[in-house]
Amino acid sequence: MSYNVVVIGATGAVGGEILKILEERNFPVKELRLGATSRSAGKEVVFRGETYRVVETTPEIFDGMDIALFAGGSASKEFARVAAAKGVTVIDNSSAFRLEPDVPLVVPEVNPEDVKWHKGIIANPNCSTIQMVVALKPLHDYGKIKRVVVSTYQAVSGAGIEAIEELKQQVKAYLNGEEAVPSVFPYPIAFNLIPHIDVFQDMYYTKEEWKMVLETQKIMHDPEIKVTATTVRVPVFRSHSESINIETEIKITREKAIELLKKAPGVKVIDNPEEKQYPMPLYASNQDEVFVGRIREDNTIPNGLNLWVVADQLRKGAATNAVQIAELLIKYGCVKQNG
Amino acid sequence: MSYNVVVIGATGAVGGEILKILEERNFPVKELRLGATSRSAGKEVVFRGETYRVVETTPEIFDGMDIALFAGGSASKEFARVAAAKGVTVIDNSSAFRLEPDVPLVVPEVNPEDVKWHKGIIANPNCSTIQMVVALKPLHDYGKIKRVVVSTYQAVSGAGIEAIEELKQQVKAYLNGEEAVPSVFPYPIAFNLIPHIDVFQDMYYTKEEWKMVLETQKIMHDPEIKVTATTVRVPVFRSHSESINIETEIKITREKAIELLKKAPGVKVIDNPEEKQYPMPLYASNQDEVFVGRIREDNTIPNGLNLWVVADQLRKGAATNAVQIAELLIKYGCVKQNG
Repeated sequence: MSYNVVVIGATGAVGGEILKILEERNFPVKELRLGATSRSAGKEVVFRGETYRVVETTPEIFDGMDIALFAGGSASKEFARVAAAKGVTVIDNSSAFRLEPDVPLVVPEVNPEDVKWHKGIIANPNCSTIQMVVALKPLHDYGKIKRVVVSTYQAVSGAGIEAIEELKQQVKAYLNGEEAVPSVFPYPIAFNLIPHIDVFQDMYYTKEEWKMVLETQKIMHDPEIKVTATTVRVPVFRSHSESINIETEIKITREKAIELLKKAPGVKVIDNPEEKQYPMPLYASNQDEVFVGRIREDNTIPNGLNLWVVADQLRKGAATNAVQIAELLIKYGCVKQNG
Repeated sequence: MSYNVVVIGATGAVGGEILKILEERNFPVKELRLGATSRSAGKEVVFRGETYRVVETTPEIFDGMDIALFAGGSASKEFARVAAAKGVTVIDNSSAFRLEPDVPLVVPEVNPEDVKWHKGIIANPNCSTIQMVVALKPLHDYGKIKRVVVSTYQAVSGAGIEAIEELKQQVKAYLNGEEAVPSVFPYPIAFNLIPHIDVFQDMYYTKEEWKMVLETQKIMHDPEIKVTATTVRVPVFRSHSESINIETEIKITREKAIELLKKAPGVKVIDNPEEKQYPMPLYASNQDEVFVGRIREDNTIPNGLNLWVVADQLRKGAATNAVQIAELLIKYGCVKQNG
């Protein structure tokens, strides 16, 4: 069986990855349509050796489609409900619907069953949240996590293709002795850090920081997991890193954590300090696993653990997770066929 | 009154800053001598408009000197005790003596009185520790800090002049489509993060991480402050940043924290999210203050607080702190004059 698939935001950083991953995983695509803003309409994209023309997203693009993959951005608010109303199963990468009670928020390694109760839209979580919950799930199942203190080191590609170009241009400017001119980010990001991602909200935390708190609780089905986050942009092209400190109800030794993480789906443990082996964004890029290392017991509390978690946020943090959700929907028979 | 001063490691990143700061602060230098390894001997350095020739460090360089400023590295182990035995007051920036019971470990804003009991050597703390304790001291005095969870974002200049050059070369190589060849660091640092600073020690923590634990307790005179650290190298030329979560005995609100930090010596509060104002390494460089921002109450525990702390680790984290110690020694009459 194969499906009519429409990708909205097909020309962006996440959209490009979605197409790559649909191809790599041999996703059963029957008809493919590509939507984008009017600015990107007319661009051509190659998928499985065939050239597709990107069109401006309009309600009609969803007619006869089975699955719509939204890469993120403002198109979601405008068109996701429209698509769902036409019977299309929507997987949405924006933050618009993640906390809606009628929308499941799914990481296939963590809460796969949640796709079953969707009402037309399934939300893909924030990139920083996805890699954190994939790493924390096996530890939570064993020792019940009570509190998480997380500091992020987020790559520029989280802010789109223009952000990648901006870092490149600023580095070039620096080497030529010119000034770095920021446009995507509020300040130069080359050779700098910006402790500000998304808008500021309650209690002086950013929206990115609140996402890590609220999305984690929803995905884990545990409103009692307490998360406090500090999110920081770093001059890395791709793959987010996270320094995570957890407190559990039951003690988890380093050895136990390694054992649990090695068995966990989607996780790869890289933790061999003697050989200087630990996860790094340069080597996590273009891979689907969540890499976990620097696993250390934290003896400042009875049941503490420190972890260093790295993943390609365009893949597992966005596109791969979305395609995995689509695969789950098919597996569970939760996609209505309209084509 | 002026003093005979010898700077050991005068041609390195920290040594160069020491000379700049002695000049800036109009330190009362009578005679100046500059020592380095044999490799750097013969180099010329300008101080207050006069040219000085750097010589290879030998025991004789300390004869007749009053104050010796060691920039760090292996020279400290070889020569600091030798200098002290000759009656020279040594301020040492290496990690060799920091935890010795007969050596005060001093941050002038935190424990100035400790210089008084020196027995020839005063140790300058680790850069990451200095900026953390300057920011935490006023909060500790008010609310008693019980636990600190810190993740660092450390600039390459912490690893010396060669590391600055290495980042530049790797960025250039990247733009030219060439491979980045690491030499100072175990992996490429351009567009990457390396969660490994200094050697691995007990419990899989690095020496850099243990320094933040043990030095903080010694400087604060409080073995009960519990610190857990994750230290990470980032592709920033200069100034270290730290994401710090603290738990206190007495509740500190955001407003109280700002009030305490604004009054604290050596601290500058930059915390105005509406105007996108927060500390960043690019703007902290070449300054002496410790910049504190992103001050947020952490409600996952009764008395929690998150902070983002940035400082120029070559200045306040090393050279400025060392020269401030020398000034304190003079103020307290704790320097023997040999010249």
